[in-house]
Amino acid sequence: MSVTPYKTLETRFARLGAVQDATAMLQWDSATLMPAGGAASRAEQLATLKVVCHEILTDPAMADLIAGAEAQNDLDQWQRANLAEMERLRLHATAVPADLVAALSKACSACEMRWREARPAGDFAAVLPELRHVLELVREVAAAKATRLGRSPYEALLDEYEPGGSTAAIDRLFDNLAAMLPGLIDRGLERQARRPAPLPLPGPFSVEAQRRVGMQLMERLGFDFKHGRLDVSLHPFCGGTPDDVRLTTRYDEADFGRALMGVLHETGHALYERGLPEAWRRQPVGNARGMSIHESQSLLVEMQACRSREFMEFAAPLLRKAFHGVGPAWEAENLYRLNTRVARSLIRVDADEVTYPAHVILRYRLERAMIAGELAPADLPAAWNEAMRSLIGIVPDSDRDGCLQDIHWYDGAWGYFPTYTLGAMTAAQLFDAAKRAEPRLLPGIAHGNFAPLLAWLREHVHQKGSRYSTAEIVTQATGRPLDAKTYERHLEARYVAD
Amino acid sequence: MSVTPYKTLETRFARLGAVQDATAMLQWDSATLMPAGGAASRAEQLATLKVVCHEILTDPAMADLIAGAEAQNDLDQWQRANLAEMERLRLHATAVPADLVAALSKACSACEMRWREARPAGDFAAVLPELRHVLELVREVAAAKATRLGRSPYEALLDEYEPGGSTAAIDRLFDNLAAMLPGLIDRGLERQARRPAPLPLPGPFSVEAQRRVGMQLMERLGFDFKHGRLDVSLHPFCGGTPDDVRLTTRYDEADFGRALMGVLHETGHALYERGLPEAWRRQPVGNARGMSIHESQSLLVEMQACRSREFMEFAAPLLRKAFHGVGPAWEAENLYRLNTRVARSLIRVDADEVTYPAHVILRYRLERAMIAGELAPADLPAAWNEAMRSLIGIVPDSDRDGCLQDIHWYDGAWGYFPTYTLGAMTAAQLFDAAKRAEPRLLPGIAHGNFAPLLAWLREHVHQKGSRYSTAEIVTQATGRPLDAKTYERHLEARYVAD
Repeated sequence: MSVTPYKTLETRFARLGAVQDATAMLQWDSATLMPAGGAASRAEQLATLKVVCHEILTDPAMADLIAGAEAQNDLDQWQRANLAEMERLRLHATAVPADLVAALSKACSACEMRWREARPAGDFAAVLPELRHVLELVREVAAAKATRLGRSPYEALLDEYEPGGSTAAIDRLFDNLAAMLPGLIDRGLERQARRPAPLPLPGPFSVEAQRRVGMQLMERLGFDFKHGRLDVSLHPFCGGTPDDVRLTTRYDEADFGRALMGVLHETGHALYERGLPEAWRRQPVGNARGMSIHESQSLLVEMQACRSREFMEFAAPLLRKAFHGVGPAWEAENLYRLNTRVARSLIRVDADEVTYPAHVILRYRLERAMIAGELAPADLPAAWNEAMRSLIGIVPDSDRDGCLQDIHWYDGAWGYFPTYTLGAMTAAQLFDAAKRAEPRLLPGIAHGNFAPLLAWLREHVHQKGSRYSTAEIVTQATGRPLDAKTYERHLEARYVAD
Repeated sequence: MSVTPYKTLETRFARLGAVQDATAMLQWDSATLMPAGGAASRAEQLATLKVVCHEILTDPAMADLIAGAEAQNDLDQWQRANLAEMERLRLHATAVPADLVAALSKACSACEMRWREARPAGDFAAVLPELRHVLELVREVAAAKATRLGRSPYEALLDEYEPGGSTAAIDRLFDNLAAMLPGLIDRGLERQARRPAPLPLPGPFSVEAQRRVGMQLMERLGFDFKHGRLDVSLHPFCGGTPDDVRLTTRYDEADFGRALMGVLHETGHALYERGLPEAWRRQPVGNARGMSIHESQSLLVEMQACRSREFMEFAAPLLRKAFHGVGPAWEAENLYRLNTRVARSLIRVDADEVTYPAHVILRYRLERAMIAGELAPADLPAAWNEAMRSLIGIVPDSDRDGCLQDIHWYDGAWGYFPTYTLGAMTAAQLFDAAKRAEPRLLPGIAHGNFAPLLAWLREHVHQKGSRYSTAEIVTQATGRPLDAKTYERHLEARYVAD
């Protein structure tokens, strides 16, 4: 009995998936436990595994195998979707000549290294030559991918993070939001000023107590410690594999809220990974759909579910017990207010739920302009500050707190930024649909029962893997395409309504 | 400019080395941190990386490349040695047909699983069919490798752990030792009985204090925590890579000595890995020479250096401080006696320095007889007990404490056992040579100065990687081939002399 082209492809992609899983574990180790002296040797390991993956995807036989599988008439819908994902991955891998890939990788390393010095010094000029070089090569990559994928250059970059993402759709959503955000921020701050300030929580909070309560909440949300861990890293992330999800956080003994909300955020990512369709492990169709859906899962858990009044009602007694808290500062309403404060801020990663999308829209517009060749890197600081003024109403004194703050562009991650706010919009629309479908959902959260929420997410998002497009998943789950309205209503209700 | 065959081989083996390094890190993670639910997915990762390695070694082009490189006249001695190691690895990988490799791997998994139930029950009959099957396939592998390597079947198995190892040489060393061991054990026990028993150390000893003092001693011995870690696993081992050495131990709050001596033992392995020639990282010639040299390094540190009176003089105040110890039990001489007690014991891993080689000789003789087809697995328990009676003077009540105690045979590791005692002999001979060459060595240990010892080992053992054979390394370092005499003298002096 001969093996069909499709079966051959499944075998090859299973190998790719296993090597990618191995890579994910080693990256987790690099960020959490690896001693500094192991870095060079680890870089060799990761680079080698990357080459192994690249060779699988660029094997000259692959195109024929995919064409052969496409001609098979015995494939079901999951297999067809798997095949489409295989072809998408192959196109990305083969679109760019190897020497351009190598040149970009080298340019990014050099630029990132320079950025690490330039940022604390606020010295944009010091990194400008390297940034120019990165942008030049990224534009070459974008042009090469655009031709192969039949998309615009920016969309070709975006496609790596947000498969099928379209700038027309993003522009519509973001323009809408950008028009209402400055007013929303103003009104949110006015309301906040009219009310008494929330009471601060007196620390310190021991790392061990923070870790314990974090794990307790993770478990309540549905995280299974037989299939994952919580550790510490400088930059919190969710790594590992669907069967062994590795969350990280970092602790500040003066403020437990940051680590805790970070843990809840990463738990959203983790539940998604863990809930991906088990029958399709290590196949492209079994992977997470893209970064906007991924971010929707973390933001749904953190922002929609866990910064709600209902969650605070459930969490308040737990937190009092964990940190021996007494007095009115530990009441649910005060905790809710502490966790929904608004402030005009310069730094994206410190921003609250209301100002965050403004930070993202700014970056999206600027990176599109740079990819289009309409904005030169030399003009970035001025353009940045102007956009900050109009969207958030403040301007940084130094590029350190402006266009030098994020690693993305300096490290070659162009086309990533919009997924944060697409994720936030998606989270709002999914949570709204889940609440309508499951009347027990919000009351359940108030009692620490997250099962209805998780069951809904499993069925409508997690289990779908990459079987459908992002747009299809949102439409199937919520009954309509993604729009900004539910998100805007959520922000209005939480931050502006009296 | 064309790339020479040798350069092409270096590139291919660098890839092999990096994938093997990645494998080592994942194995370490499996044993230390991985949640139980990650096991199946990890098994896929490891199996896939193993296939990637196997394909590198069995690529049909490899034989021609090696022949081409052998014909090059521009290679230096290190490159020639590297080439010889490449060919050895290729022969091992290609000697055995793929279906036999797969069948053995499956048989070992099944047998090991059965053994895990049979061992606690002491039920040898329950695992006998699986053991028979493993042995049958191991003998096929041995026959296939024997033909390709031009060695006897047992030596072909041994070669994987002890490259170039010869049964004639091992027989000579072990027969010599076996003849004197029973008498040595008797006299050691007599001397011990004549003297007052050492004072026990009153516990408990907190895990944190044990960990701290273990790390302190590791550092004094020369372990560099910028290039390694100490963690916990069920079975202590030294894993990772030369640039990121991962030691493990396990703690018993009632007895700190076991974890501590285990840590010192693994530190010997770690110093060897770390000291391998940096210029040859991820090349075969840069690897550790073999298991007997590896074990010699752990036993040299643990048995020769760290169970010496000199070490106890240095360690006693440290241990008193770490565990708040007071009184005569914490004197160096008492610690020395506690760490050099002799007992006839049934279990190899619990055995003392004097009885340990008897356990190994027993296993070596029995596994050779089984590979030769002279001992049937069904007759193993009787043969085991008879050998125990004659070599150690006690017989187990149950096979649990007899032929079921070690995982090796059930898991397919045949030809491994002799390296433990070859390592012990090599350790004695190397330590003796080092002391002669460095008069400051023993006095240095008494003051916690291990630099002269480490410098000698770096120069005479570690830095040689696989540039020379095991026999050449021993002869160059000590002025003569390995013999049992120095080892026997060491045991006599420590355990019998008055």
